[in-house]
Amino acid sequence: MGDTLGKIFKVTSFGESHGRCVGVVVEGCPAGLRVQEQDIQKELNRRKPRKNNLTTQRVEADRLHIVSGVLNGCTTGAPICMLIWNEDMDSAEYERIRSTPRPGHADLTAHIRYGGYNDYRGSGRFSGRITAGFVMAGALAKQLLSQLEIVVAAHVVELAGIRAKQRNLTEIIEPASRDSLGCADPDASAKMAAAIRRAARDGDSVGGMIECISVNVPPGIGDPVFDTLEGDIAKALFAIPGIKAVEFGSGFSGSRMKGSENNDPFTVINGKIATETNNAGGILGGLSTGMPIVCRAAVKPTASIAKPQRTVDISKMKDTYLEVHGRHDPCIVPRAIPVVESVVAIILADHLTRSGHIQRVLNENG
Amino acid sequence: MGDTLGKIFKVTSFGESHGRCVGVVVEGCPAGLRVQEQDIQKELNRRKPRKNNLTTQRVEADRLHIVSGVLNGCTTGAPICMLIWNEDMDSAEYERIRSTPRPGHADLTAHIRYGGYNDYRGSGRFSGRITAGFVMAGALAKQLLSQLEIVVAAHVVELAGIRAKQRNLTEIIEPASRDSLGCADPDASAKMAAAIRRAARDGDSVGGMIECISVNVPPGIGDPVFDTLEGDIAKALFAIPGIKAVEFGSGFSGSRMKGSENNDPFTVINGKIATETNNAGGILGGLSTGMPIVCRAAVKPTASIAKPQRTVDISKMKDTYLEVHGRHDPCIVPRAIPVVESVVAIILADHLTRSGHIQRVLNENG
Amino acid sequence: MGDTLGKIFKVTSFGESHGRCVGVVVEGCPAGLRVQEQDIQKELNRRKPRKNNLTTQRVEADRLHIVSGVLNGCTTGAPICMLIWNEDMDSAEYERIRSTPRPGHADLTAHIRYGGYNDYRGSGRFSGRITAGFVMAGALAKQLLSQLEIVVAAHVVELAGIRAKQRNLTEIIEPASRDSLGCADPDASAKMAAAIRRAARDGDSVGGMIECISVNVPPGIGDPVFDTLEGDIAKALFAIPGIKAVEFGSGFSGSRMKGSENNDPFTVINGKIATETNNAGGILGGLSTGMPIVCRAAVKPTASIAKPQRTVDISKMKDTYLEVHGRHDPCIVPRAIPVVESVVAIILADHLTRSGHIQRVLNENG
Amino acid sequence: MGDTLGKIFKVTSFGESHGRCVGVVVEGCPAGLRVQEQDIQKELNRRKPRKNNLTTQRVEADRLHIVSGVLNGCTTGAPICMLIWNEDMDSAEYERIRSTPRPGHADLTAHIRYGGYNDYRGSGRFSGRITAGFVMAGALAKQLLSQLEIVVAAHVVELAGIRAKQRNLTEIIEPASRDSLGCADPDASAKMAAAIRRAARDGDSVGGMIECISVNVPPGIGDPVFDTLEGDIAKALFAIPGIKAVEFGSGFSGSRMKGSENNDPFTVINGKIATETNNAGGILGGLSTGMPIVCRAAVKPTASIAKPQRTVDISKMKDTYLEVHGRHDPCIVPRAIPVVESVVAIILADHLTRSGHIQRVLNENG
Repeated sequence: MGDTLGKIFKVTSFGESHGRCVGVVVEGCPAGLRVQEQDIQKELNRRKPRKNNLTTQRVEADRLHIVSGVLNGCTTGAPICMLIWNEDMDSAEYERIRSTPRPGHADLTAHIRYGGYNDYRGSGRFSGRITAGFVMAGALAKQLLSQLEIVVAAHVVELAGIRAKQRNLTEIIEPASRDSLGCADPDASAKMAAAIRRAARDGDSVGGMIECISVNVPPGIGDPVFDTLEGDIAKALFAIPGIKAVEFGSGFSGSRMKGSENNDPFTVINGKIATETNNAGGILGGLSTGMPIVCRAAVKPTASIAKPQRTVDISKMKDTYLEVHGRHDPCIVPRAIPVVESVVAIILADHLTRSGHIQRVLNENG
Repeated sequence: MGDTLGKIFKVTSFGESHGRCVGVVVEGCPAGLRVQEQDIQKELNRRKPRKNNLTTQRVEADRLHIVSGVLNGCTTGAPICMLIWNEDMDSAEYERIRSTPRPGHADLTAHIRYGGYNDYRGSGRFSGRITAGFVMAGALAKQLLSQLEIVVAAHVVELAGIRAKQRNLTEIIEPASRDSLGCADPDASAKMAAAIRRAARDGDSVGGMIECISVNVPPGIGDPVFDTLEGDIAKALFAIPGIKAVEFGSGFSGSRMKGSENNDPFTVINGKIATETNNAGGILGGLSTGMPIVCRAAVKPTASIAKPQRTVDISKMKDTYLEVHGRHDPCIVPRAIPVVESVVAIILADHLTRSGHIQRVLNENG
Repeated sequence: MGDTLGKIFKVTSFGESHGRCVGVVVEGCPAGLRVQEQDIQKELNRRKPRKNNLTTQRVEADRLHIVSGVLNGCTTGAPICMLIWNEDMDSAEYERIRSTPRPGHADLTAHIRYGGYNDYRGSGRFSGRITAGFVMAGALAKQLLSQLEIVVAAHVVELAGIRAKQRNLTEIIEPASRDSLGCADPDASAKMAAAIRRAARDGDSVGGMIECISVNVPPGIGDPVFDTLEGDIAKALFAIPGIKAVEFGSGFSGSRMKGSENNDPFTVINGKIATETNNAGGILGGLSTGMPIVCRAAVKPTASIAKPQRTVDISKMKDTYLEVHGRHDPCIVPRAIPVVESVVAIILADHLTRSGHIQRVLNENG
Repeated sequence: MGDTLGKIFKVTSFGESHGRCVGVVVEGCPAGLRVQEQDIQKELNRRKPRKNNLTTQRVEADRLHIVSGVLNGCTTGAPICMLIWNEDMDSAEYERIRSTPRPGHADLTAHIRYGGYNDYRGSGRFSGRITAGFVMAGALAKQLLSQLEIVVAAHVVELAGIRAKQRNLTEIIEPASRDSLGCADPDASAKMAAAIRRAARDGDSVGGMIECISVNVPPGIGDPVFDTLEGDIAKALFAIPGIKAVEFGSGFSGSRMKGSENNDPFTVINGKIATETNNAGGILGGLSTGMPIVCRAAVKPTASIAKPQRTVDISKMKDTYLEVHGRHDPCIVPRAIPVVESVVAIILADHLTRSGHIQRVLNENG
């Protein structure tokens, strides 16, 4: 269990970091959607390591293969299986360190969970590489959402403790405004890049915070009680390795405000009901308000570091030291941005398929 | 949809704030658990308004009725339906304000979601009163967990911006150490109580932050990818009205640390593998490490306030003012504590039922 | 597990034969349906023992209580909890025979499944009385279906080996045409009643076959592969105690025909595509064709009989004899008819909610 | 939806008859099972067309590819993706007949269901070729079941109305006793083969009946009410194109018996409780009794026939004639045998994983 996200627009993940492939089966995608393969590929490329010294040096083509569910460029209503093949694997290092679980990693918990049978090479199922599957499914979800003019955009708001200047919605939504780090504030971005380089040089790593904004979600989407938009989005975000905190709207800081400050007054704008502020992050009672849906996720510093660390040799049950060599990202925040967008898009596509909104628009356009 | 939590130990919620009752059906509870009704009642009482001036004045007996699934004091393996009847309802105010949605509430989003047919009295399905159902199910989950010596305890760590002094685990787990506000720091608690009284006097409200700690969860519990412990716990927490942020372990602040600081070194203690620190909050790769599971949830200031607020008259689509009279809590944080414990307990019971741990212990004890 | 039917229009059953109540929670019923309580009660009454000597003498009022999800006579979109209280229980006999499992009953399998903790009184969860919950949910489903002019009607086609004359659709659909045995052929019905009386007198029991017809289901409803209409309907039918076989259209006899005989030729009738015959029972590829959906279910002779039977004393692991006294039906076929209709209606309501058909009509009518 | 079977041991199907591939993702398979690839291949081969004149002439290698979830020959606990590539497709005929739906096929219902976007080539998702995925998953399930000595075996009991002589269990379970038609009665088998050849010569087709027997299933497996073994097995069987009826134990004929005849007396044999007869087909109250689980499924005559048939030209909404050329099976019954075994094995593996039986044995053996 644990490999499926969504109820109607349903995504099943498969594959391992050093196995044959990483893939995904998407069920419940309405028939008649024109699939833009090159846009899915583009999203995969956003997640790929950059040809700079800020990311891992593993080189993968990550070329998209759609092996079912699409005919003549359109979805057929059948499950859509998409995958990328793994090519540039080097598992030697993982053999060497098999009995010394890496701190901050799932090596030990997975070993216990699966009685030692789990694929340990490159973190197996627990690798960030698995999120390539999320991105393929998310890119498809975005194409569904675009039928309703919904845009999902994420950007870095903090990295290594360096905060980006707050920008307005238009600046953030516009892809061109975000640089290669996924930041819409060039000054902060330069400092962030320097911090990453410094961490890399020190054999260390840094974390950060990603904000994701979804605009044009119609009001009244979501379900009360146990399937709130907040709950579903948060659950999906925690599927991304390294995310340890999620907040919506005013979030943690809102809990320090008065009710009279935090409540968003309703008002009529251009004949439509809006709120003057958006402390709710576009969600009230678990349902969309029609305002932008705003969430922020904290990404921990990459667990993989070159520095020597204390750990346990589980074969001898003795404390020891561990030094890991390998090809790792000193900061995964920039590469996590399209993944954050993807899981948010999947959740929105799922709720909008459940509510029938997407099918209605597809029928009108089709 | 949206009324069910869990996959095997599965909780279905029903009822409304001003309807006949609030209840819950619990499926998948293993047979042979001795049910302590009085302990479930005790948990319901913890959620009830206090006879002081810090909470709503609605008076409900909240007396537990178990109407199925228990025979001779033991679970039978059949679904367990539990409910409390509603008695002290006064829906007049809600009739009066029906066309002026309250800011910060689900009035408008629910109206849109259900085409105006939703039960609007006392927030209907979106009321905090629904969480009484969570508490009944959670109290049962706690009794299951106690078979494995697992304890789930929550406390207030911040209220109205006032932070409680950090306490050690033993102090927090011990119920007696937490006062009527659910705080383990008497000095801070006195200030928090004053802040609540001040807010009440001003016709305003305050929020806060709750920390929940689960001890003795065996390592290797949880599922990777889409059913991580973080994801499942977060999703469950967001079912509680007013929660807008969730973090695990070092959470948001961890994203500002270096990898070498945030990684928890493994070490052998008394022949068992532990971590020296617990920045991971007891979860790595979505699976339990065996260390205490630590999460914090931010509760927004109560949306219901007496102060006049700006809103829209939806029958005229015009801006207007709204003044709400009624019986509301100036701060729901203390009453939310047993609810937070409950949903965390439900998730743990679900994962430990899936993994077979609970059944094994019940068989040995039974 | 095992207490839930349906994916969107979802029914969760609870209660026991000799517990406090029998009930059901219905999730996913669209908001805005006018609920006719008296029609639900009428369906419950159809399932009740008759005041004749053909059924059990247990006397229950079976009075419907809707305790959530309905406001001002309309569904609100919230889960609908409905229940009947148990009143006329007599568990003494079940105490007496606890260690001698009744042949044809679930006594032994349930004992093993639940480690002896299952509610054994009156068959507990395995009692036919549980189907009162199906009927409440099914009656609601029928009211949803009636928005689309869909009618679901079942009748006895065979009882104790006595076959009813084949009738045309109009005769069967018309409730008045079916007598108190649920048979549309008065001559056969008289013989069936005699056979039941004879079985009762002999301390024995008889079975039979029920046919269920659903008309006006739009074409293209259902899902391929694992959620076919046949599969979902069959699964729901096997939830009814005593049903051991299910067939659609020409069913078993169709497997003896040639393809050229069994294939139903398409033809245009009044500008619509129909089939000349209906050997497919209204389902092709798991999807509705628009023709009547026809299924037949075989009901085994009631397992409860007064005649002495061979069984095992499980406390001594020795063969023994068992004589059961009690209030049983010598034939449950007539009382099973509204139950068969109910589960078929639930499945159709579920698929038509998934496809959005019902919501569209409710919106137009609402 | 509709592509997933099972709750814990969960099978998701993907692929089309004339698309790139046919495949399956299996979630929830316990870690540590030694996977015999050659045995999965062997099962795939059983489903393949024979090199005789009794089946389709489409030639596919159907070579198994396991692309995830297996490491060093063992399951890892991760989802297992298995697929075969499609190679020998010829879609020309399907282009020609696109506007004239074939009687007995899903052409029209699928067209309506998916607004014309469905993959119509070779029946797309509705093709019998999709069941190759069931077989891959079923072969894996059988390997799980073999840990508990459970054997699932199906054979032809009737074909073209010709009934096979009844055989004892040992004769049926033994693979060698079943010939290339899957029949354990050589005399009947010869007549069946002749009937198939005759039908082929006439451009017609025949159907039949398959019996499936599962031995060594421990008692008490299954769930009451909505997830009975009968319900789950029947639902899975109806996923196989052409199956229109399912019965358990004495099934339809049992409904003509008296209770005293149909009830199976319990008795102690070798210190274990058994039943003297097995009219229940090994299932009481939806739970296994420990006796062989016996079900029979009726397969309709292949819908694809060469004879001219009446149908409708949907582009002109006019009656017309249709003549289909192509490579079809005059009888799919023999090829359906491994598919029947597969879906039964999947359901049993799912229930035995839910109950923890398989994990316990794997841990002991591993």
